[in-house]
Amino acid sequence: MSADWLTQPCAKLCEKSREEATQRQAVLTKPPGALGRLETLAIRLAAMQGSALPALDKVHIGVFAADHGVVAEGVSAFPQTVTAEMVRNFARGGAAISVMAKQLGASLEVVNLGTVVQIEPLPDVRQLNLGPGTANFVNTPAMSEAQLQSALQAGRDSLMAARANGTQLFIGGEMGIGNTTAATAIASVLLDLPPDALAGPGTGLDQAGVSHKAQVIQRALELHGEAMTSALSVLRCVGGFEIAALCGVYLSAAQQGVAVLVDGFIATTAALVAVKHTPAVADWLIYSHASAEPGHASIVDALGVEPLLDLGMRLGEGSGAAVALPLLRSACALHAQMATFAEAGVSDKG
Amino acid sequence: MSADWLTQPCAKLCEKSREEATQRQAVLTKPPGALGRLETLAIRLAAMQGSALPALDKVHIGVFAADHGVVAEGVSAFPQTVTAEMVRNFARGGAAISVMAKQLGASLEVVNLGTVVQIEPLPDVRQLNLGPGTANFVNTPAMSEAQLQSALQAGRDSLMAARANGTQLFIGGEMGIGNTTAATAIASVLLDLPPDALAGPGTGLDQAGVSHKAQVIQRALELHGEAMTSALSVLRCVGGFEIAALCGVYLSAAQQGVAVLVDGFIATTAALVAVKHTPAVADWLIYSHASAEPGHASIVDALGVEPLLDLGMRLGEGSGAAVALPLLRSACALHAQMATFAEAGVSDKG
Repeated sequence: MSADWLTQPCAKLCEKSREEATQRQAVLTKPPGALGRLETLAIRLAAMQGSALPALDKVHIGVFAADHGVVAEGVSAFPQTVTAEMVRNFARGGAAISVMAKQLGASLEVVNLGTVVQIEPLPDVRQLNLGPGTANFVNTPAMSEAQLQSALQAGRDSLMAARANGTQLFIGGEMGIGNTTAATAIASVLLDLPPDALAGPGTGLDQAGVSHKAQVIQRALELHGEAMTSALSVLRCVGGFEIAALCGVYLSAAQQGVAVLVDGFIATTAALVAVKHTPAVADWLIYSHASAEPGHASIVDALGVEPLLDLGMRLGEGSGAAVALPLLRSACALHAQMATFAEAGVSDKG
Repeated sequence: MSADWLTQPCAKLCEKSREEATQRQAVLTKPPGALGRLETLAIRLAAMQGSALPALDKVHIGVFAADHGVVAEGVSAFPQTVTAEMVRNFARGGAAISVMAKQLGASLEVVNLGTVVQIEPLPDVRQLNLGPGTANFVNTPAMSEAQLQSALQAGRDSLMAARANGTQLFIGGEMGIGNTTAATAIASVLLDLPPDALAGPGTGLDQAGVSHKAQVIQRALELHGEAMTSALSVLRCVGGFEIAALCGVYLSAAQQGVAVLVDGFIATTAALVAVKHTPAVADWLIYSHASAEPGHASIVDALGVEPLLDLGMRLGEGSGAAVALPLLRSACALHAQMATFAEAGVSDKG
């Protein structure tokens, strides 16, 4: 049984604020359109925040970690112990996303949904123990229905707490050795593309490794084919706890009217699940960067979106979204603080 | 007579720091290469700053303004009075680059090299009065040799003062109604491409206006053809005071070993002149964004560089470089503050 909240409608964008922001952009001291996508970003954020002058002072980063049973099939370049080791690295401030959170003045929360290696209690890490990672989805569904619901709820809990704290924008990140295999499997079903059209090196497979990964996914899709009748059932059969948590974040962010900055390959796959489940979620998602993981381009195309950055990043953790955040903040600052033609005594177009 | 400084050699990059930074990137807690261009940026900045841990706390923005005689030919969508009006807007904090300088904690200097409308003394605006704009280069060279030398020197003076103040990176911006016409003329000569292959709308010409602009440039190139025997002579015949000042910034930054973040169409054209004059200048230039002005792509291709951002911006003022600066700062923060595998107790690749 799905939880009731999963079918709640999405919040509506504020058309009045969108219109006010559009009018303001037209009279700022610059040729019309000269700030390019920074103009449309400011206008979109205005519509999301219901304010003609949107702001991004309070940003929350939630990083969701979990292990994947499918790693038993030899689909990752790094050992599975790294997931738990990286959770400790997040908590101690040594990971990329920890550095970026500090750099951006953003709050950082780490949620361990379930790792193979048990982790001692750590400050600022929420440990949910949904299981020692997912099951190996070559043999059995990755998750039980109860685990799926708990993982979705974990994302919702993070979003609701962040919202209660005044968060103006949520960045979701993830860590999970093996999770490009799960994400590729999900995308393969939802985009109706063969695994070998989407599979990539993840943390560093060679070409033979990528081929093997695609074959492993193909076996899983054959096993679960008939059971995967909805976006959430795909997530349950071949997904991961952290991917489900991100999906829960995106669904509830859209319901609660909180802007989201989506990271790369894994996060975009979670966004794809959320949008397939509830298309109006798309209104609340801004895509930060084009991942170097090759399957990302197909997902982005299917969603009809254009990420802001293309820097060849493929780390996850929310790092690409964090690196893109200053673009949104610049958009807001320019929108709010530039003088109008009238204020500055500057002549308009001749 | 050219000034002696124009032929000084460029500073050398520090290969020791480059190597140390490269080694550090390899042991940070991430898959090798997973931060994409942020890794190569950190390594390049290390080589420029002669430090394995580069930093960008002190950034200086110099905006150079001037008018263009060729505006008499009807090549701009905005009236020429706007140049002087925008100088006032810079000084009062209402322009895009003023907002960005504040947002970034960067120092902002405005240099008025010569406008048609005389400007009253303004705080923090250096007024050089090289003339009431350039001459109309359809009839006569845009500048005298003395004006060219003064404009180049103005850029050098800004760079030297910034360097004395500890500037770690210099952003050059420009303002000058008509300056896409001058930049297009320069690029047309230096890339050996016809004006109609490079001309674009600038601040907002329609298609007929763009065609007319290309024809005006074609007339100028026919007039000055034989006189344009070097990169600096092209600058003198069909350039602008502010473009020459930017060229002076880039030449002297490379000589003094100061990293530069290059803005869009006009700034990249100035960089092209500097690199044609002294190829080793290229070592010190980082390209911030792909301008929406169509000719920019050809200049970028000729330089063999790939700008960091592509957001459809086309404002000038240094605004695209300013918007890109946080990417460089993120690269430095990640490089300096992430834990190594050994420090974090994280397992390396299996």
